[in-house]
Amino acid sequence: MAIYVFGHTNPDSDSIVGAISLSYLKNKIGEECVPTRQGEISPETKFILEKFGFDVPQLKTEYAGEDVYIIDYSDLAQAPKDILDSNIKGIVDHHKLGDITTSTPLECWIRPVGCSNTIVKEMFDFYAVEIPKNLAGMMLCAILSDTVIFKSPTCTKVDVKAVKELARIAGIEDFKALGMEMFLVKSAVQGATPRELTTRDYKDFNIGIKKVGIGQLEVVDLSVFDDMKDDLFADLKALKEEGTRHTVLLLLTDIIKEGSLLLVVSDDESLVESAFDVKLENSQVWLPEVLSRKKQVVPFIEKAFK
Amino acid sequence: MAIYVFGHTNPDSDSIVGAISLSYLKNKIGEECVPTRQGEISPETKFILEKFGFDVPQLKTEYAGEDVYIIDYSDLAQAPKDILDSNIKGIVDHHKLGDITTSTPLECWIRPVGCSNTIVKEMFDFYAVEIPKNLAGMMLCAILSDTVIFKSPTCTKVDVKAVKELARIAGIEDFKALGMEMFLVKSAVQGATPRELTTRDYKDFNIGIKKVGIGQLEVVDLSVFDDMKDDLFADLKALKEEGTRHTVLLLLTDIIKEGSLLLVVSDDESLVESAFDVKLENSQVWLPEVLSRKKQVVPFIEKAFK
Repeated sequence: MAIYVFGHTNPDSDSIVGAISLSYLKNKIGEECVPTRQGEISPETKFILEKFGFDVPQLKTEYAGEDVYIIDYSDLAQAPKDILDSNIKGIVDHHKLGDITTSTPLECWIRPVGCSNTIVKEMFDFYAVEIPKNLAGMMLCAILSDTVIFKSPTCTKVDVKAVKELARIAGIEDFKALGMEMFLVKSAVQGATPRELTTRDYKDFNIGIKKVGIGQLEVVDLSVFDDMKDDLFADLKALKEEGTRHTVLLLLTDIIKEGSLLLVVSDDESLVESAFDVKLENSQVWLPEVLSRKKQVVPFIEKAFK
Repeated sequence: MAIYVFGHTNPDSDSIVGAISLSYLKNKIGEECVPTRQGEISPETKFILEKFGFDVPQLKTEYAGEDVYIIDYSDLAQAPKDILDSNIKGIVDHHKLGDITTSTPLECWIRPVGCSNTIVKEMFDFYAVEIPKNLAGMMLCAILSDTVIFKSPTCTKVDVKAVKELARIAGIEDFKALGMEMFLVKSAVQGATPRELTTRDYKDFNIGIKKVGIGQLEVVDLSVFDDMKDDLFADLKALKEEGTRHTVLLLLTDIIKEGSLLLVVSDDESLVESAFDVKLENSQVWLPEVLSRKKQVVPFIEKAFK
């Protein structure tokens, strides 16, 4: 029976590439694994898969009774609904430790680094398995995506070292240029519906009894959103109602100016204000130097909302 | 500020030795760490520390505001009461994933192997740090203790390999003889009070809303308990009342005959009977081949009690 390997809901590039890279490694060491995904892929992920010649993993949202490895999360809110009825054989992740529990011993490779694929690279090294050229290129892109080409405060020396080694394997000389090409694809928001944008990189968090959704869009120039902000706000309001959420946040991140415009729809805006020690104007505020949802947003929201 | 490294409540040899071995490694790679313990050490642990010339780690039960690494558990029930007010920088463990969560990214080395010190050995190899001779001997003893000298079903090839490498480093030729010497120390129950025995290797588990305590005593010959069973039962009843527990179990494990006599004090003995598909007589039953609480007891109790 094959073991399924998959990332979180609303998969980002790290979740999709990680499912593929971890499956490849596990197959090489004798465990039959199949990469899957919980949702639609983003234009950025599509660019990466096509560039390096990989298929989109199959969509699968139910896992009761299955053996699974999960990658890039350990929160129930980001898991398939029936995750606790599956047999979790392992977790590879680089986030805070979430509320998923197991009833049998497992394998966890969790590290405070910038990207799950950095950890998969460590696993390849540990098991002394060679990384194919095209897989290395894809893993490199996942790391550049998660670390915003090393600009994010989540980026560590380990991530930089992994990218350099993967670039050598993949034969990519100017990996920063490849990173910018990827972020330009990511910045193309024309033609996308507001819902596609608000949920493209979106995660729900359970903070005490409050459900808080936080989306993020990383672009090379915030002006692409100028004519779109009312529509985005309207959709955030809809998201909040549909999911009986206390708060929905959207980070519009400018990776060149290095900061994020935060859009807020909340039952209590003052909690968000106290989280970042700011005043909202028209339910929005510019947060200079904030690039990382994980490190610069979630911990402060958690503290203020608890 | 030093980082504290410690195992679970009612520390066993793996928890104490693991605190020392992980601290040693972390100090070598530039993190100032201090091993501590949450409770009294067992005669077996005392034997190991004395044999290899190590001090007993300091007793410390409060960690609010401190940086910590925890080893050999990830359950709140086995943690200091204020663990969620500490900053958990990492977890090294070989059990099922428990209900401890964090608010920041961390480092988890969790593996489905027989002993936490087997994982610490992997970490030493990963960081290419040399293990001192006396520390290697102590880690070897922790692994032999947790795996019942390789007899436990929790023992893996990785544990056996780690023991062999540690034996070479420590210059120990007959490590199985050392293991038996250690288990003979562990078997010396004369002079101990019933409470010392029931709690020597004891863990609480929260299963749904039910609190279940499970203790284990591993000896080379069960006859040492012949004159003691009434006193043990009386103390299990007291433990149950004091902690408003639903059930308290004590495994009297014969490591030569390879099985366990299970003593049961419960609000509902039938749940225990259904867990193992047995009939209790005088609240006890012999479970052949059962050596491992983690693998052969806890999962079945969890399933029956949920």
